[in-house]
Amino acid sequence: MKYARIQVGNKAMYGRVEGQNAIYEITDAPWRDHKRTDRAHKLSDAKLLSPCNPGKIIAIGLNYSDHLGDRKAPEVPEPFFKTVSSMVGPGDTIVLPREATKVQEEAEVAIVIGKQCKNATVDNATDFIFGYTCANDVSERNWQKNDLQWWRAKSSDTFGPIGPYIATGLDPANIGVSCRINGRVVQDGNTKNLIHSIPKIIEFISRVMTLEPGDLILTGTPGIPEDINDGDSVEVEVEGVGILANSVCAEQS
Amino acid sequence: MKYARIQVGNKAMYGRVEGQNAIYEITDAPWRDHKRTDRAHKLSDAKLLSPCNPGKIIAIGLNYSDHLGDRKAPEVPEPFFKTVSSMVGPGDTIVLPREATKVQEEAEVAIVIGKQCKNATVDNATDFIFGYTCANDVSERNWQKNDLQWWRAKSSDTFGPIGPYIATGLDPANIGVSCRINGRVVQDGNTKNLIHSIPKIIEFISRVMTLEPGDLILTGTPGIPEDINDGDSVEVEVEGVGILANSVCAEQS
Repeated sequence: MKYARIQVGNKAMYGRVEGQNAIYEITDAPWRDHKRTDRAHKLSDAKLLSPCNPGKIIAIGLNYSDHLGDRKAPEVPEPFFKTVSSMVGPGDTIVLPREATKVQEEAEVAIVIGKQCKNATVDNATDFIFGYTCANDVSERNWQKNDLQWWRAKSSDTFGPIGPYIATGLDPANIGVSCRINGRVVQDGNTKNLIHSIPKIIEFISRVMTLEPGDLILTGTPGIPEDINDGDSVEVEVEGVGILANSVCAEQS
Repeated sequence: MKYARIQVGNKAMYGRVEGQNAIYEITDAPWRDHKRTDRAHKLSDAKLLSPCNPGKIIAIGLNYSDHLGDRKAPEVPEPFFKTVSSMVGPGDTIVLPREATKVQEEAEVAIVIGKQCKNATVDNATDFIFGYTCANDVSERNWQKNDLQWWRAKSSDTFGPIGPYIATGLDPANIGVSCRINGRVVQDGNTKNLIHSIPKIIEFISRVMTLEPGDLILTGTPGIPEDINDGDSVEVEVEGVGILANSVCAEQS
């Protein structure tokens, strides 16, 4: 099943995707009790938003061997945060901040939490997952290197494209994720190669931190991201979800 | 003026504090258009919540000289994030996670943003401030030292006590902040000694990140925090706001 969040007039609505080009409004977030209504929109005409509205976004650093370079594989998952104010939806523009000098994309499989979760175990962790979506963990490398903590490096406005859909029923141990810049493939990975698996990540985070329905966990990026520049188009594709496409532009002063 | 957020039945309501012991419900968040109702509660009976419900919590590291130790004063503010799921209110318990080994308090003056803010300047930054409250940036020092980023070190559940009130009309360049553990003063500072002033912090963050009404910025902690342990009581006092009191207990396994 696939779900989206769409703009209808001034309101954000959740909807269920059916067939090739229809989205039916549902009465609440898809991970809560809801009904499918008969109010349908053409997918091709709908303004898609980021498909959830999380209380927090957690991302995992250094979670694919082919992304490590000369860094050691971490013994435990290494989370950090992205702010919800960094989120944008499918089709929105990634704006390069005026003072940014080296911005790169990071294609990631994102987990959408479905149930409140504390002290999950590897064995029951998937019970708390509602579905998966595409994420682009946009990153400014000089800020990432030089600031005390990763704040603007990872959470400048527009640095969190998410979408287009939440897909349910995927196998967390076998989800392909790739990225194209201007049509050229620059990243290509699969969650089967994660250093810390999806259940392990949920277990580790939820030992100390309650995960809430709608929260997002970005599971790490494979391979070697590249610079993105004014005028580029970036596509993150997650197998079974779809393509998250965003254009890049320089901030106007 | 002082505002609070209180629990009334199952609902969280904002209220205005009047006189010594009354809180009047208001119809919306205090930084939005609202009316004062005539529904009053005794302050002494009310269950106070954290006084706002932010989209993000930003905190500033290394922002008082007497907190630096052998670290250099940073040339620019050094933000990091605390998750909203780490927040608790006045009177709530700070729970020491099972695997934590060295938890300390950090008393801080917190800014409550009142208006959406991007690209503020030092000259107009205070226009975007609604008021101030007390914050305790509870921190686990071994995680802070050893993890790639400060996530569980700063955002484990209950590591963000906030409250009890939001006070308006304070002078951002002269707000006293102190901390007592079991009645003994352990931190004592004033925002006049901030390395990066409150207007400077807002200018710097808002260059890259939109601040939203209700967002919190914790401005840094003075002096030398101490360990907090099971059974301790911690009070953060911000001059003109009041006292944020929380007890400490070890997580039950």
